[in-house]
Amino acid sequence: MSLTTEQEITAEAMRRWSTAQDPRLARLLPLLVKHLHAFAREARPSMAEWMAGIEFLTATGRICDDKRQEMILLSDVLGLSMLTVMLNDPRTADATPSTVLGPFHIDASPGAERGSDLADGIDGARLHVRGSVRGIDGAPIGNALLDFWQADHEGFYEAQLGSEEARLRAILSTDERGGFDFWTVMPRGYTIPLDGPVGDLICRTTISHYRPAHLHFIVSAPGYIPLVTHIFPSGADYLDNDVVFGVRQELIVPFEPVAASPDGIGAHHEVQYDFVLTPAAEVAVQPRR
Amino acid sequence: MSLTTEQEITAEAMRRWSTAQDPRLARLLPLLVKHLHAFAREARPSMAEWMAGIEFLTATGRICDDKRQEMILLSDVLGLSMLTVMLNDPRTADATPSTVLGPFHIDASPGAERGSDLADGIDGARLHVRGSVRGIDGAPIGNALLDFWQADHEGFYEAQLGSEEARLRAILSTDERGGFDFWTVMPRGYTIPLDGPVGDLICRTTISHYRPAHLHFIVSAPGYIPLVTHIFPSGADYLDNDVVFGVRQELIVPFEPVAASPDGIGAHHEVQYDFVLTPAAEVAVQPRR
Repeated sequence: MSLTTEQEITAEAMRRWSTAQDPRLARLLPLLVKHLHAFAREARPSMAEWMAGIEFLTATGRICDDKRQEMILLSDVLGLSMLTVMLNDPRTADATPSTVLGPFHIDASPGAERGSDLADGIDGARLHVRGSVRGIDGAPIGNALLDFWQADHEGFYEAQLGSEEARLRAILSTDERGGFDFWTVMPRGYTIPLDGPVGDLICRTTISHYRPAHLHFIVSAPGYIPLVTHIFPSGADYLDNDVVFGVRQELIVPFEPVAASPDGIGAHHEVQYDFVLTPAAEVAVQPRR
Repeated sequence: MSLTTEQEITAEAMRRWSTAQDPRLARLLPLLVKHLHAFAREARPSMAEWMAGIEFLTATGRICDDKRQEMILLSDVLGLSMLTVMLNDPRTADATPSTVLGPFHIDASPGAERGSDLADGIDGARLHVRGSVRGIDGAPIGNALLDFWQADHEGFYEAQLGSEEARLRAILSTDERGGFDFWTVMPRGYTIPLDGPVGDLICRTTISHYRPAHLHFIVSAPGYIPLVTHIFPSGADYLDNDVVFGVRQELIVPFEPVAASPDGIGAHHEVQYDFVLTPAAEVAVQPRR
């Protein structure tokens, strides 16, 4: 009978978890053990520190519900979400880069017609969002879907206001020339929630707990890799220290002021963005390592 | 303004978390980031795999309550708990080794006099447990405390039976010669709970989900390092594949059958164990790295 020693425990735990029936799980789980044990060997947590870690993860899980996902927030602030996004980014050099999904996406936003005003009475400076969706070859993509959501002018999503009703979010489609436009309100940067375990941890550091203002999009079309991304107003606060590491240079664009026009459109801001998608065929040849 | 690239995100996240006010946290958190990112870079999880991991950890936290600690169970089956125990084991070569605490300890077990019968009507083969507590110099330790708990003859702790009442657990103290003894029932090996996320994961592998039979002890005395350990009956099932990696050679001891005696003590088993504690002074000179 062989018992496990400190020297052998990592190899034995990796061996055990490599017996997963699913081959991908049989690769992922031993790697998790390997790196988790490497962390423990380098950090040498005391038993009290180990228990504090257990209690932190437990509290992070327990505060989650159908409106709050603190475990994603933890992954976000540790840089794991954005690293995973970047490791998975299938784009070619010319395509729009991805960024984090974040915890506020919902699966069934209401549809909206071209030119709709999503603000519909919600306070805030008016914003006109327009642009196009095209492939890396420059060809417009008609009937592409834009799943759009954003925080309001105070930095809140509806879930944070205790509302069940979809607000400042919509699914739009492009016209035959790949164009889209809609009206909304200027987004505002916001703090991550500080009333949970992740906020507690951030508050024990000097890390900025803010995200810069942004608009969320998932852009998809048959034959192309779905794109999960944001656009950020140039000059926004916190662009250089986004708490979730989500800012990429290509996603920062001017949100220009537009004066009131004689035909009755009031003063507003306007942003124009052309999303560039990567064809699915471009990445199909890269097998997962 | 510098934005984070895939190459830079790990260094930037480590830098941010190194700003924790507490110096130990300022060391632990960057190391966590380093090893978590190393895992992601080697494993290259897809976004769907990342989300499956988030959902797994969330479910593991959410199933925890004051009687069930699934996050400890996860740490246990990944070998992290036992590795941490071994990294922290302060014992000198002659002292009794530590093993995992497990999730079934409670903080305020009832006191029991020497010679007590903890079984008190509970089914199972009778077991007499006796021995001593001494220091590594061989000197007996009087008034040492033994915080004892165990599963019953079917492998259940009271929490698993829906009971609030302490059962098969007690705090005993040694006499002036360091001796202790009490009566209980033979413990039985048991499966970890399979009705939660950790059980689901184990069932996707060929890993044995059993622990060998054992008795739990926390042995403490002023001036000595508290000892968290088990003793295991020699010949028990699963000694060589304990699902939580908790077995150590020095903790396997005979639980000998004893025939009924003429003075009225019925047939039973008996185990004798001498716990050897390390003086606190022996380890005080090893600063944490």
